[in-house]
Amino acid sequence: MRIKLAEKYGFCFGVKRAIKIAEENQDSATYGPLIHNANEIARLKENFNVALSNDLGDFQTGDTAVIRTHGIPKDELSLLQERQVNVIDATCPYVTKPQQICEEMSQEGYSIVIFGDEKHPEIRGVKSYADEAFVVTEVDDLKALHLKERIALVAQTTRKVDEYMKIANYLIPRYKEVRVFNTICNATFENQEAVEALSCEADVMIVIGGKNSSNTKQLFSIALANCPHSHHIEDEKDLDASWFENKELCGISAGASTPDWIIQNVVNTIEEFTR
Amino acid sequence: MRIKLAEKYGFCFGVKRAIKIAEENQDSATYGPLIHNANEIARLKENFNVALSNDLGDFQTGDTAVIRTHGIPKDELSLLQERQVNVIDATCPYVTKPQQICEEMSQEGYSIVIFGDEKHPEIRGVKSYADEAFVVTEVDDLKALHLKERIALVAQTTRKVDEYMKIANYLIPRYKEVRVFNTICNATFENQEAVEALSCEADVMIVIGGKNSSNTKQLFSIALANCPHSHHIEDEKDLDASWFENKELCGISAGASTPDWIIQNVVNTIEEFTR
Repeated sequence: MRIKLAEKYGFCFGVKRAIKIAEENQDSATYGPLIHNANEIARLKENFNVALSNDLGDFQTGDTAVIRTHGIPKDELSLLQERQVNVIDATCPYVTKPQQICEEMSQEGYSIVIFGDEKHPEIRGVKSYADEAFVVTEVDDLKALHLKERIALVAQTTRKVDEYMKIANYLIPRYKEVRVFNTICNATFENQEAVEALSCEADVMIVIGGKNSSNTKQLFSIALANCPHSHHIEDEKDLDASWFENKELCGISAGASTPDWIIQNVVNTIEEFTR
Repeated sequence: MRIKLAEKYGFCFGVKRAIKIAEENQDSATYGPLIHNANEIARLKENFNVALSNDLGDFQTGDTAVIRTHGIPKDELSLLQERQVNVIDATCPYVTKPQQICEEMSQEGYSIVIFGDEKHPEIRGVKSYADEAFVVTEVDDLKALHLKERIALVAQTTRKVDEYMKIANYLIPRYKEVRVFNTICNATFENQEAVEALSCEADVMIVIGGKNSSNTKQLFSIALANCPHSHHIEDEKDLDASWFENKELCGISAGASTPDWIIQNVVNTIEEFTR
């Protein structure tokens, strides 16, 4: 069996940047997981003493709080600043952008529609910058909304563009102005395009990334649509040798928060299975 | 054979308004045809002495110029005003809107894309309000354009919404912000929806309106897609008795600049054919 990596996969600009920031801030703590990858977070703790705290109350005057790639709600950021916590912002610049858009468009009187997962930390952060915002995941969610005639539309950075377009296509004919901000990040696009191509070719697909990682889930759903033998794993321990029996081509992709060392472990383990 | 009129057809708000303005301004002249209907223009000349001039040079100080529903280019309007011509503006308010959008979006630094017919007077007028604007009729026209990252998109008021959406769908994933203004007018929507429904049911379709009327051409193309025996006529003289042989249901629609008296003449003639 051959193993083939997608043309684009794994760490994006924002994740690389956040890890570099964390490594440069030893003995700090991130507020919430820096990225959606437990293995990489454990490595940062072990090698750089960057802890993880999920409780805002843990941060006191003089502490250093590293803001996760997904950003945090505006009021929580204000609270840290008021408390004179040393805030190091590792929010991905592609996430800062929709936060700014929500703030500006709210001020200009637009109704704000966010395409994404209401419970995802990125969206909880982005939404907090609007006076009021409606978070939707599908066209049906739009039908009951009372929106103004002028709408600003933003997307979670890791969403699939064709699903975003369905939202835009519903709104545009029904309202006077729909201001569509393309906030889906390029790395997400590129990883998605590459997994789309590879999964059409492969007869087994392995998508590596945190189970809570939005962009990994999107990659997995694209893979699954083209290749029924697709599996979403976090690391090599989730692999099952039987998946590779009588297969010719194993395709591999990984989410934006999956470090290369985990991908390499997965490749090595699959090679051992099929040797 | 039964004859059935579409649920919505004919004169729109802007056309009714323009005719009223013309009737109130006897002994004036319109600069270019007030609406795209030669029969109605002849009636205005005969009954109200509202002439038609296609030459800007004809208008001199003290003359009254009625501006056509489609609007005119900004520099021509300025010229009339400089020459102290008495300008009566019968531009449809739904056309004034995209003119304003082009002007504002140009000032705000957006690239302007207009979906419409470059040669149509409405679009020549609308375009003139932008510093620079690209007029397109299909997605292929977009591919060679060098646009900024922020785009404002407007449509000719009489275009089909699904074709407008194709333009929007091409642009949105490729640029940072696409500000989509829904400038297609409701009357156009409603007439289009009604002809869509009726042409699915009818076995012969008659669409009445000027051969140079954009909205009539759109209605005809919708009718033709559903009913192969569709005909675009200007008035009853264009009818051919053979079209109605062995037919059960004749559907009728008419463009936004087609007066009721012409529609009535058409209905009467078809009834005579099939008596």
